[in-house]
Amino acid sequence: MSSKFMKLVVMSSFLVPVAVAAEGGGVQAAPNGIELPEQYKDWPVISVSHRVDNHTLRAIVGNDIAIKAARAGQTNPWPDGAVLGKLVWKETAEEHWPTAIAPKTFVHAEFMFKDSKAYQTNGTGWQWARWVGMEQKPYGKDADFSKECIRCHTPVKSRDWVFTTPAELP
Amino acid sequence: MSSKFMKLVVMSSFLVPVAVAAEGGGVQAAPNGIELPEQYKDWPVISVSHRVDNHTLRAIVGNDIAIKAARAGQTNPWPDGAVLGKLVWKETAEEHWPTAIAPKTFVHAEFMFKDSKAYQTNGTGWQWARWVGMEQKPYGKDADFSKECIRCHTPVKSRDWVFTTPAELP
Repeated sequence: MSSKFMKLVVMSSFLVPVAVAAEGGGVQAAPNGIELPEQYKDWPVISVSHRVDNHTLRAIVGNDIAIKAARAGQTNPWPDGAVLGKLVWKETAEEHWPTAIAPKTFVHAEFMFKDSKAYQTNGTGWQWARWVGMEQKPYGKDADFSKECIRCHTPVKSRDWVFTTPAELP
Repeated sequence: MSSKFMKLVVMSSFLVPVAVAAEGGGVQAAPNGIELPEQYKDWPVISVSHRVDNHTLRAIVGNDIAIKAARAGQTNPWPDGAVLGKLVWKETAEEHWPTAIAPKTFVHAEFMFKDSKAYQTNGTGWQWARWVGMEQKPYGKDADFSKECIRCHTPVKSRDWVFTTPAELP
């Protein structure tokens, strides 16, 4: 392979992430120091859900480590390095198929970051973060906000703190 | 651009599908000759929906061209080369949060392939295909099956035959 070709390939492989970073840059870190994962909108689907209690629709997505674990059925515990994302929208009826409930406004993107050593101090092995609205404002007044996440996830402590079951896929 | 470089780019763009075909190979083509897009499970989310009429949940995903168009708001018409996928599951109540409706069994994956020239003969500029169940059996007895798809999508002819509105994302 010619060095000219290699150079062009290397250049093009850098161009994509740089372009994305420019788009997602400038988002403030969560109060616990966690940064918004830059490419979360490109992550594959792990599952979806419709919360009929608060009228929201959700896509549950994951980074490479999470996707690999989900497809291998190795999710209790999830492996270190797994990041799960949940994209949440208010619901609306689809204009041309009213019995299809679909996303309206974007509510927030929230994430769980697994590191059984680094995040063992909060008792879960996960760190938590949420960015609210289209302006992606970090959720929480201070680092204690994650106590709220953990309290809500306590019913699924035995499932490594995760509600989502990866959806069946061929 | 040198012809040598162009040749290498063309070669490498063929290499990726070949490598992936080995992984997902063995799935039969649809009766109209359309092949299952090998990497559809890795595609990013365009939207989600919950059809309360037939009790199914859906993730709507897209290939690179579709995602770029969705994020740029250039979806009427969708560009040639765009492929939209819909992953469909039967619904169930989530065990630990019963007001969250989540996927149970996998129903099918269905796709729309845009090529305004190649697929103009059916009057839509799209080709259609569906693979049913975990065994990914092609849907339809013969190539005429897509008439059924088109009939159902006729209410959204003015939206380039697509029901889905890309979900709002930051």
